Amino acid sequence: MFTGLSAFPLSPMNEGGLDERAFVRLIERLVAADVDSIGVLGSTGNYAYLTMAERARVVALAVEHAGKIPVIAGIGALRTRDVLTLAEKAQAAGASGVLLAPMSYQKLFADEVYGLFEATTDALSVPLCVYDNPGTTQFVFTDELHGQIARLPKVASIKIPGVPVEPEAARARVGRLREQIPSHVTLGVSGDAFAATGLNAGCEAWYSVIGGVFPATALAITRAAQAGNAEQATRLSERLAPLWALFRDNGGSLRVVAAAAELQGLVESPCLPQPLKSLSGEGRQRLAATMEALDLA
Amino acid sequence: MFTGLSAFPLSPMNEGGLDERAFVRLIERLVAADVDSIGVLGSTGNYAYLTMAERARVVALAVEHAGKIPVIAGIGALRTRDVLTLAEKAQAAGASGVLLAPMSYQKLFADEVYGLFEATTDALSVPLCVYDNPGTTQFVFTDELHGQIARLPKVASIKIPGVPVEPEAARARVGRLREQIPSHVTLGVSGDAFAATGLNAGCEAWYSVIGGVFPATALAITRAAQAGNAEQATRLSERLAPLWALFRDNGGSLRVVAAAAELQGLVESPCLPQPLKSLSGEGRQRLAATMEALDLA
Repeated sequence: MFTGLSAFPLSPMNEGGLDERAFVRLIERLVAADVDSIGVLGSTGNYAYLTMAERARVVALAVEHAGKIPVIAGIGALRTRDVLTLAEKAQAAGASGVLLAPMSYQKLFADEVYGLFEATTDALSVPLCVYDNPGTTQFVFTDELHGQIARLPKVASIKIPGVPVEPEAARARVGRLREQIPSHVTLGVSGDAFAATGLNAGCEAWYSVIGGVFPATALAITRAAQAGNAEQATRLSERLAPLWALFRDNGGSLRVVAAAAELQGLVESPCLPQPLKSLSGEGRQRLAATMEALDLA
Repeated sequence: MFTGLSAFPLSPMNEGGLDERAFVRLIERLVAADVDSIGVLGSTGNYAYLTMAERARVVALAVEHAGKIPVIAGIGALRTRDVLTLAEKAQAAGASGVLLAPMSYQKLFADEVYGLFEATTDALSVPLCVYDNPGTTQFVFTDELHGQIARLPKVASIKIPGVPVEPEAARARVGRLREQIPSHVTLGVSGDAFAATGLNAGCEAWYSVIGGVFPATALAITRAAQAGNAEQATRLSERLAPLWALFRDNGGSLRVVAAAAELQGLVESPCLPQPLKSLSGEGRQRLAATMEALDLA
């Protein structure tokens, strides 16, 4: 389950609540594209902004409509207590795996993060992917801590934040982390602009934001890399440079893919929880022009 | 209300819930010490870790036991929707003012933060203090944005994160911000190690962590500065240097004051929500020795 293309859909919502019909539409697109797994309630799925009840509903809807494709559910929360509740509910709803980031308000220490993963894996019956995202959690994993957590039972993958741009440096970085972790634990790259480089450098998975909204585009890169065609994967990714530039200029991928889904009519506008705003004005026009030029849909 | 010593108590809790008896004890100590205001559900009050219902209960208990001392309630949340609900509940429970930090998971842009404060102040009937805490919110205010937000109705104070150590530089920093904001908006310093310098530099308030657990100590510094006795305020603060060093070495003040309250028997141990841990081992021994040497109680 923690290999190939894991597509992370938005959780479209407004101030009234989750837009369930739009969410199901997004899931159905991923099923039609035949992605390798569906990662709901990642950062792209705005897990941190939803109530416990809304999160349980997202997992249930995804499982109901995902067919044979495994659903991985984000269970991150500020409190260990809430993480344990979310893990239980995700399992009850039929999630095949869970994804856990050490979300923080007070910056966490390594022993606190280890304690969180220890308590969670103790309680789990499905496998877990460690979600390393310093940009949103404020927590920076060392490779040593990754190694300690990866040896806990149920840990099956690590979602890492990007890799160096240089192919040799990327391979070295993946290799260094690989030395610290058991061989059954896969590595998955995130930061879509780095995905081709990460897959070419030996990551077994791509935890993908654009996979949630442009699944065919993300699959083409993934399949090229999996077939050993590193050059083609790189070329397909470099073609998307204007999209990566939009991510860079708009605080990351979330606001851009939200606007992309709005522009495609897949979700209503706005689809992000306030105070977050998707692109407007010139940024939105630039995105529309980019989507047309790159034939993204 | 947004002047003098505003004392920020812990919200003692365990995995089962809030320890209401211990919380009331902390409030009663602040009333006995006669602090100028009580700031519940600040970062020290672990607002981000509590449910909406628990937060309403904290405000109600504080108001019930605070007597004539005004209660300021933290209403920060990731979603504007939740901030508005918390504002309504805090007002209904009798809070005299509210405190709002632009809490984030996705880093926020300035226009998103402005939108949050605009929506909130539109709905408020009590005054609001802007809570500027980049260490926990990941958002850095510019003075220009402070000026724009301070001109919104209901904004009455800004809780700023420390000031430069040098008295002249501190005065210049406070002066620059003061130029941007209306004269009815007060400035309050936080970061306890900087409090004497901030008060001496012209801040009207100290939003104080140690005020919540050592109120007499914090009041002595505040009253000296308010009386124009800058040297005495500085001397009283410098005496606490071993405490400021403990804050520096333990990721800030929260884990230290939690352990201090545990050591005094004011709260049960542990009193922080997992995965957070208060001090243990050598750190805890060092705190106990510091409290004894400085006669803190």
